[in-house]
Order: sequence, then C-alpha cells, then structure tokens
Amino acid sequence: MPDLRRDPVSGRWVIISTDRAKRPHDFQVTHVHPIGREHCPFCPGHEAMTPPEILAYRNGSSPNAPGWDVRVVPNKYPALKVEGALDRQGDGLFDRMNGVGAHEVIIETPDHTQTLATLGEGPIERVLSAWRDRIRDLKQDRRLRYILVFKNHGAAAGATVEHTHSQLIALPLVPDFVREEIEGARRHYAEKERCLFCDIVRQEIEEGRRVVQESADIVALAPYAPRFPFETWLVPKRHGARFEEASAAEYESLARMLKAVLTRMDRALEYPPFNLVLHTAPFTDEAVDSYHWHLEILPKVARMAGFEWGTGFYINPTSPEEATEVLRAIQL
Amino acid sequence: MPDLRRDPVSGRWVIISTDRAKRPHDFQVTHVHPIGREHCPFCPGHEAMTPPEILAYRNGSSPNAPGWDVRVVPNKYPALKVEGALDRQGDGLFDRMNGVGAHEVIIETPDHTQTLATLGEGPIERVLSAWRDRIRDLKQDRRLRYILVFKNHGAAAGATVEHTHSQLIALPLVPDFVREEIEGARRHYAEKERCLFCDIVRQEIEEGRRVVQESADIVALAPYAPRFPFETWLVPKRHGARFEEASAAEYESLARMLKAVLTRMDRALEYPPFNLVLHTAPFTDEAVDSYHWHLEILPKVARMAGFEWGTGFYINPTSPEEATEVLRAIQL
Repeated sequence: MPDLRRDPVSGRWVIISTDRAKRPHDFQVTHVHPIGREHCPFCPGHEAMTPPEILAYRNGSSPNAPGWDVRVVPNKYPALKVEGALDRQGDGLFDRMNGVGAHEVIIETPDHTQTLATLGEGPIERVLSAWRDRIRDLKQDRRLRYILVFKNHGAAAGATVEHTHSQLIALPLVPDFVREEIEGARRHYAEKERCLFCDIVRQEIEEGRRVVQESADIVALAPYAPRFPFETWLVPKRHGARFEEASAAEYESLARMLKAVLTRMDRALEYPPFNLVLHTAPFTDEAVDSYHWHLEILPKVARMAGFEWGTGFYINPTSPEEATEVLRAIQL
Repeated sequence: MPDLRRDPVSGRWVIISTDRAKRPHDFQVTHVHPIGREHCPFCPGHEAMTPPEILAYRNGSSPNAPGWDVRVVPNKYPALKVEGALDRQGDGLFDRMNGVGAHEVIIETPDHTQTLATLGEGPIERVLSAWRDRIRDLKQDRRLRYILVFKNHGAAAGATVEHTHSQLIALPLVPDFVREEIEGARRHYAEKERCLFCDIVRQEIEEGRRVVQESADIVALAPYAPRFPFETWLVPKRHGARFEEASAAEYESLARMLKAVLTRMDRALEYPPFNLVLHTAPFTDEAVDSYHWHLEILPKVARMAGFEWGTGFYINPTSPEEATEVLRAIQL
C-alpha cells in the first residue's frame, strides 16, 4: 500500500509508492524508446492492455472495444489506490496517512499519430470534458480533497507512453502548491476584496507585454515570474474558482486557445516536451471567492539545474517579455 | 542586468537572468558532450580560461597559475552580479529587485579524473573549508541575506563542466525552501523549546531503520519523507544553525561521512548523477536556536515526472527504509 508522508520541517507531503518500486539496477534510464503502434496500450484494438475503462465517449460501441473518441482508464501502476479507509496517524515526530486516492489516464484520441496540438478544436474540447466529468464524479468521494490534472508530453517531460494522454491524481489532501496559491490569493482578497488573478488579468491586458494571445473568454500570458523559459498560463477572464464549473463557452474558448498556444510553442521551440498542470480550487468552499482556476504550460526547453531541482528555487534564462515576443510572432 | 521577481500568488522568487538567455534554437540540448581535458577550463594550466580567482589554496605558487589544491572563481555566466546598489521596487501588483549577488565556482581538485567520492578525506575537507571561507567573506556584504552552496554532479544533474566542482550563489533574499524549513523548525521550537532537527536525529538513531551511517559527530540518514529515491541527509549531531560556524572536528567528520555516503551511492546505484545542497541558516539571528545546518544529497536516478516538475508535489518510488537497507549493505 502506498504511503503519504509529511516532512515535519518544510511541511511538504510526499507519496511513498513502493508498489512502483525499482531495484537500484532498474534506474538510470536516460530515455524512453518509442514503442511501435503495434504494442501501444492506448491504441484502438488494444483495449485489453489497460485496466477496464472508467469513462469513454463512444458512438454506440461496446465498453473496452474500439469505437471511442476519448477513453479514461485507471493507471496500471497507480501512485494511489481507491481501496480502503483513509487512515491518518502519527509516527513519533512524523505524520502519515495511507495512500487512498485515484490515478487515472485520459487517452485523448484513438489516433496514435496526433498530439494535443494537432488535434482539432472539437477533439480537444472532448478532452476537457473528460477532465470535467471525472472531477465531478470523483468529488463525490468524501475521502478526497483535491484532483490534480496534468499532462506530460514527450519522454523528457516524463511521459512513458508515446500515445497522447493526460492523467489525473485524486488526493486525500491539498497539495502544497495549491495551498500556497490559495494563501497568497486569500491575503490579497482580505486586503482588497478582489480576486488576485482577476487583478492580474486586468493589469496584464492593459500592460500587454506579457500577453501571448487573447480571446473573449481566455487570456494566454507569460507570468511575471515564470519558473521556466516560455512558461505560459491560460487564465479565464471571468472569475471562477473551479475548472469543473466553467461554462460551455469557456471550455470551447479554452480548447481553441490551447491549440493555438501549443501550436505557437511547437513552431517557435521545435516541438518541445512540456508539462501542463490544471490549477483549480480544492473541494471545500474556503477559496471560492479568492481563487481562480487556470492552466499552466511548462515547456521543458532547458535542462533543470540541480539548483532548482533540490531547492525549489528557480533560475530562468528567458524573460517572460522575450518569450511573449517570440510566441506572438508565430503566424498561425 | 538580471532581475529577481516574485510571483504574487505563491510568493516564490525567481531570478530572471537574461544574460544567460538562449534563443529558442539553442535549447533542446539533451546531453552534454564530455569535453577533453585539453579544453577543460578547470584544469591546471588553463587558469586563464576562467575569470581571475577569488580564493585558492596553494603552496606558494602565484595566483591564476598552476600549483593549487582548491580554486574559487566567479561563474563565467553568473545568475547574479556583485555590481550595483540593491534596488527593491513595486511594479503594479508585482514586486521585484535587481539581481545583486554573487555566483562562484569552487574547483574541488586540480585532477580532472577525480570525483568528490574518489577524492581523499583531506581534499574533501579542503572543499568544505573553501565553502566556509567564501561564506564568511560574503557575509560581510550587507546587501546579502543568504548563501546557497550546491553541487551538480553529472550532466543529467545539470553539470555543464565535467571537472568536479561545486557552486555558490549569494542572494539578497532568503529562498523559499529555507524560509519554509525555518518556519517549520520555529513552530516546533515555540511549542517544545527544542530544535526539531535535534529531535529527529535522536528519534532516528533510536529507531535505526533510516540510518545509513553514523559517526561521533554526523549521522547520515534517509529522511522520513524523501522527495527522491535514495535521498540522504548528513546532519551534525551537535546543534548548530550555521555551517560556517561548525567545529574543526565536525568538518573532518563531515568530509569522512561524505566520502563514505557518496561511495555507497556510487556502488549501489552505479555512479549516479546527483545534486548536493547545503542547508544553513540565513545571516540574520532569527533562526539560531531553532534551525540546524545539514547537507542534502539528491541522487538523480528516476526521471522527474512532470507531475513533480510543475507542482513541487513529489512521487517517490523508493521508501527511505528500503533505500537505507541498500546503502547500508554496501561494503566500504
């Protein structure tokens, strides 16, 4: 059974997932070899290679058979598991809880040759719908506190299967990065009774130098203090704490913007690996006024120096203004 | 001029160091080619390939000439620069300050074929002395608040020069990871009037399952909630907030322990890349009672998943108890 453990010094939680444990000689993998389509567990016709599906958008075909547009399955090597009661306990100075949660894979298209950037806007919107539907379903589980939706694109960004997919991890706690953002947003709200993200969106649109692209509903911007070169955030203009409560128009706009921004990155940076992380409010109501959901895209174009890696303190060699110029100059 | 910028949401500071800026086509480097010794800027006889030295341990030879044991030079592509007055300013919603600081390289040995693990205990102790001497000197600069000493070993851990070296970055602020640790340590101290690290050391030695090696002065342990497989901390048994105030016996013990632990890792994990980060108290006196200096070694044996990368939320596939067993089993 995996463990969740808290470092008593920094307060950070870690999943100890020994089910995925490697013997020392299993490490040292420096690159993942692309597997052929014939062995791809996410291609149509290979449905038996994954655990049975949790959700699929299909036109009348049977579960776990071909004929789907998007398919959601449990991760075969889950970091957390749904079984069992949640058990929080002390261990001398330390705190732990068992690894109750869920870990799912969203297979974004049946077509092995596509990426999220090359998919049509309709199919991208279906991916967003799958995220929303899974979040809404998992929220009913009272043991859970947060759902982390993310995507690793390319082996260098951590993807171990080539076929385009995203993942979700449902957690019995709120991750530090969300708590920190909520804390910052709450301080701003307490002082000004305004959402910090709404203020940022307004200021950035007025300023303009970090706006990569803008539509009626969504603004794509380089954050003021990006951790990574070409880091880009997609932020809805209308206040809303939770991704799963966005409007139909917002999902449609987000799909369009996501395709545009990823296409800009593909052309400017020559098809970089990237990570994409959905930031949305926890299940509780505490942050509804002050928090604001958004999507963060983190291209992996520079080697992580150890500096950042072990410390959480980042050195970024590209200013957001420079990155914005490069991305904005791309002809779509 | 580089910039330090603060994300108003999470509160994290980032260095925007455009002097090191890359054009998009300069990215996408997946591995560093080992350069021959003949082009190594850190080898004796090549002293002119670095900026003039700041410190060197020599037996009578001239500055910037061969004949040294350890040599400290400014980083040729510094993330921060010593020139200029520190200027803190607001920028609408945002906060920034200019990138005043220092970025230095500690060349650990004249011998290109050595690693920190293969150096003798005496030479390792000289490296620790160089860290201490540079910290003591830089502390006199009133603009600075913290000195981060770290080492990237191997290209996969961010090293761009093969010849074994460590680095230091002197900052006009205290990095988040230190502030978080200080905060956690201070809460514990406020409640119990005891140092949290001292309590951890006591509990771990009593428990034993996460102790890799122990000497009179230093304990090497796998932390309870490690972020990375085989993460190992070297903690002095005697309370002390600052590395640069440790005793001669402690430096000697630390050198011995460092050699032993790195040798264990080399044998168990087949010469892994790693990062090493010194955690020590800021220049102010606030944390003297509650903080406790130590060294963290973070082997890079698993690919960082994007999950961890973009979120600061880690999944570690190896339990610390398992890692301890593997490292302890190595015959030295």
